[in-house]
Amino acid sequence: MSTPTMGRQMASEMAEQPDVLRQLAERFAAITQDVRSVAGRNPRGVAFLARGSSDNAALLGRYAVELYSGLPTCLVAPSVMTTYGRTPSGFAGWLLVALSQSGRTPEIVTLAHQFRQAGAGVVAVTNEASSELADVADFTIALNAGVERAVPATKTVTSQMLAALAIASGLSSDGLTPAQASEMPDAVAALLADTTGVREIGDSIARHDRLAVVGRAVCYPAALESALKLQETTGIMAQGFSSADFRHGPIAVCGPDSPAVLLAGSGPADSGTRDLAVELKARHAPVFTIGTGPSVDAAWRALGNPAEAILATVRGQQLAHALAAARGVDPDAPAGLNKVTLTH
Amino acid sequence: MSTPTMGRQMASEMAEQPDVLRQLAERFAAITQDVRSVAGRNPRGVAFLARGSSDNAALLGRYAVELYSGLPTCLVAPSVMTTYGRTPSGFAGWLLVALSQSGRTPEIVTLAHQFRQAGAGVVAVTNEASSELADVADFTIALNAGVERAVPATKTVTSQMLAALAIASGLSSDGLTPAQASEMPDAVAALLADTTGVREIGDSIARHDRLAVVGRAVCYPAALESALKLQETTGIMAQGFSSADFRHGPIAVCGPDSPAVLLAGSGPADSGTRDLAVELKARHAPVFTIGTGPSVDAAWRALGNPAEAILATVRGQQLAHALAAARGVDPDAPAGLNKVTLTH
Repeated sequence: MSTPTMGRQMASEMAEQPDVLRQLAERFAAITQDVRSVAGRNPRGVAFLARGSSDNAALLGRYAVELYSGLPTCLVAPSVMTTYGRTPSGFAGWLLVALSQSGRTPEIVTLAHQFRQAGAGVVAVTNEASSELADVADFTIALNAGVERAVPATKTVTSQMLAALAIASGLSSDGLTPAQASEMPDAVAALLADTTGVREIGDSIARHDRLAVVGRAVCYPAALESALKLQETTGIMAQGFSSADFRHGPIAVCGPDSPAVLLAGSGPADSGTRDLAVELKARHAPVFTIGTGPSVDAAWRALGNPAEAILATVRGQQLAHALAAARGVDPDAPAGLNKVTLTH
Repeated sequence: MSTPTMGRQMASEMAEQPDVLRQLAERFAAITQDVRSVAGRNPRGVAFLARGSSDNAALLGRYAVELYSGLPTCLVAPSVMTTYGRTPSGFAGWLLVALSQSGRTPEIVTLAHQFRQAGAGVVAVTNEASSELADVADFTIALNAGVERAVPATKTVTSQMLAALAIASGLSSDGLTPAQASEMPDAVAALLADTTGVREIGDSIARHDRLAVVGRAVCYPAALESALKLQETTGIMAQGFSSADFRHGPIAVCGPDSPAVLLAGSGPADSGTRDLAVELKARHAPVFTIGTGPSVDAAWRALGNPAEAILATVRGQQLAHALAAARGVDPDAPAGLNKVTLTH
């Protein structure tokens, strides 16, 4: 079973998140200004380009753009563009946000270059300020998250999420303020200090091999990211669902041997997620709601939605770490997985 | 265990697909012209609006737009817009494609109206030509698929997919031709007549409770749709993955008790999907590749990618039906699921 060193790297990197987020929050106002200077007064839309965990940060960014500004926004499908040899067109006046922890995922670098040639302004979000991706961009948001050694990305994901919120906030007067962003590090620290609940959930889920992770609106990217962390660290078949879709079909996968974790914050979409507990109990599925405990709710309420998605993501990391411990597997280096995405 | 009437409704509706697709293929050229007249010569982008199975058809449409024209294209997140009370802006000159089998999913109707007010041309794709959604649209593509009674949507999904390809083809000179579209009904009929392979796969998977369904590029929407069908009909925790992402993390969920189905056509992204079989076998995971048998390949090759996604979707339906039979559950009316999505 588990040894004391198992998961130490992941835990240590998770614990760095308040500091990583703090130095990024201090640059929040500057980033919004840089975004405005690249995007201009009336950008035609905002495209996000990413893969894997970064793709979940991109999805949050895309939701934030919709929420804050209502502008056209999309996730680019790298597979479609690169494997078919298509180049983007019609993106003049757009802002492209390219997210890559390493800054060297080849298809991200190649496509970012093509978007720039198509007339889009390019912002790079990366942990490597002197990478190929940074070379292509009009400006780079360096995450300054330090080296990430554990295979499951944690601090680079939450910092990408905060960077994405800064970008979306730069394009609207309704976005997150620098003052709100500055509350994030302490809120994350409070969550990290409170592990009793997630450990109990981890122990309850440990004997199961499948799990639904459900959230809606801004908690949906957190649900996808949490499911990915759980897959990588424990091999459990965790699957992220939007609560709206879940109710009308996929809920059929839940039952006595298939628990569900509901990620619900304080936003207008979250009550619908909480309501699923009734239907899940009718199916005799073990249900765990994350976001209803008093200490979590306090942190939740301190931040405007969609910043809550970052907190929900931290909860998912904790759950993945706790579940790995309960199952006696090492989350730092899951068998057969590599750190850097080199998909061409 | 299973009785002779189980799944008869779903099978009957699946069998109607060649006829449904034929009458739609006969309107293919007319649809492309209607699209051009609504979208104008230079649309700024194409947004898709849908939920559930329709969302998978929308994803294929979105990929086809990227492939055929490279234009900006996105899936709108209905949750984000409606629950937060945001209205779209910056969509003047866009084409909105709203897909709803019933034509009366409230949030789809409401948002379609808002997009129209924001200056977008609106195309409705629905099985109900005199629905609220049709009232909002500039023009409506009626699927004319007949009543669909089984809970798992089949004929309405493949016809939505063909309609989405027609729309994307109307916006580019590189799209599917009416002649290619006219080959679709026979190709689907050939697949439907060939069930030995999928039944064998269904029998092999039947004792497992979790399954990865993997595809890339245009086979990715088919993988998501197949996973959804499998969830709804059998309660198996089937999860759709993009092969590019799968390799770098989620592959950890596969092993001796967690098989994988690889959906691979003849496109440039599909060899990478097939290559996954090696890594999956190293993990001792049962692997089944759909799309390599001679009869399938013949149909595959007759059509240009991304039309293959429709064939891959039919294969997923067959697998769901076969797996339900092997597990002795009735796919026509899964416990606790309703047909119409009424999410507000």
